[in-house]
Amino acid sequence: MTTPGGGRRGRRPGGEDTRERILGAARTTFGEQGFERATMRAIAGRAGVDPALIHHYFGTKQQLFLAAMEVPVDFTAVIPSVFAGPRAELGQRFVRFFLGLWDSGPARPLLVGVLRSAMTDPVAATMLRRIVTEGPVLALAKAIDRPDARFRAELIGSQLLGLAVVRYVVAAEPIASASPDEIARAVGPTIERYLDADLGPPRSDRPAG
Amino acid sequence: MTTPGGGRRGRRPGGEDTRERILGAARTTFGEQGFERATMRAIAGRAGVDPALIHHYFGTKQQLFLAAMEVPVDFTAVIPSVFAGPRAELGQRFVRFFLGLWDSGPARPLLVGVLRSAMTDPVAATMLRRIVTEGPVLALAKAIDRPDARFRAELIGSQLLGLAVVRYVVAAEPIASASPDEIARAVGPTIERYLDADLGPPRSDRPAG
Repeated sequence: MTTPGGGRRGRRPGGEDTRERILGAARTTFGEQGFERATMRAIAGRAGVDPALIHHYFGTKQQLFLAAMEVPVDFTAVIPSVFAGPRAELGQRFVRFFLGLWDSGPARPLLVGVLRSAMTDPVAATMLRRIVTEGPVLALAKAIDRPDARFRAELIGSQLLGLAVVRYVVAAEPIASASPDEIARAVGPTIERYLDADLGPPRSDRPAG
Repeated sequence: MTTPGGGRRGRRPGGEDTRERILGAARTTFGEQGFERATMRAIAGRAGVDPALIHHYFGTKQQLFLAAMEVPVDFTAVIPSVFAGPRAELGQRFVRFFLGLWDSGPARPLLVGVLRSAMTDPVAATMLRRIVTEGPVLALAKAIDRPDARFRAELIGSQLLGLAVVRYVVAAEPIASASPDEIARAVGPTIERYLDADLGPPRSDRPAG
């Protein structure tokens, strides 16, 4: 895959580092301020580069946002590991994986950024919709092989999204400081039910009347 | 209860109308723009009053926000009606009540406003936390009489909050255009489980280690 500026890598040995530094600064800044208020200037300042260099590598602020918000997790590798283990605890394992994304590593400011921005910005709302409807949750629902996988994926996504808002954004106690195990025990069976249970008349993702 | 400016009602026969008009304009403006970007000037313009009058009636922008975002629904009257009917469908009835809040009436821009603002503004985040942890969901959980009512209320709140984001904010299909009955059938049992089920070792809302 080619990236803007990729052809110049020979002339700029630090190019890959610079791109990563810009992406990191973008994630933090979008995470703190949301898409709309974050400026290219602030991101450039945090990354220690000239704003023109960001334009050179990534183009517009929207393009930078899309690049920065690509979740740096290989979801195709996750699903088999979630399926490994007792079937009855599949939901709990998926909840633990989801909490792990937030509790550690670089994904958290990014996920907070997407959540924040999605409330006011159509680009970010589209990205959140994609995460919910096409991300790992859909992969999980498809692995179960049901005709209404998308409806089920969105139900799961809605529960996890709401959980993230309560635990990480508004930090309501006792959920904010409950252990991942406690959350997984409480929420896991909800995920299993959305995967497996009869949810009413079969809908096969038909549009509702 | 006294309200600022209430003592002048005799001299200003349209006062109550004006307050309501300001509150309506505030709900719409906060809903569209979020707390931070909404200006007193824009709210005054929409209400057709002088900004000074808003200060006179409501004080600061934060005080206006709090007044505007008071959900105009008598929740104490709602809980008995949710309990009336077969116990097994309690969750479905609560989901239908929740969707009804969004699908009709004046609460929707207000709820969207709280959601949007809560992502970036501490005042709105506190308000959302209060809605989730002290609102009708807690009343429901308390009516079930469990020691960990608050934990259960937040689990229910997290599911409903996420459902609202998926259905109303990012409008992901098929959930966005599913009928209230379809949603209630799918999500209702989740609410019932959070009210009734064994959620792991008893926690009595103790802080987690």
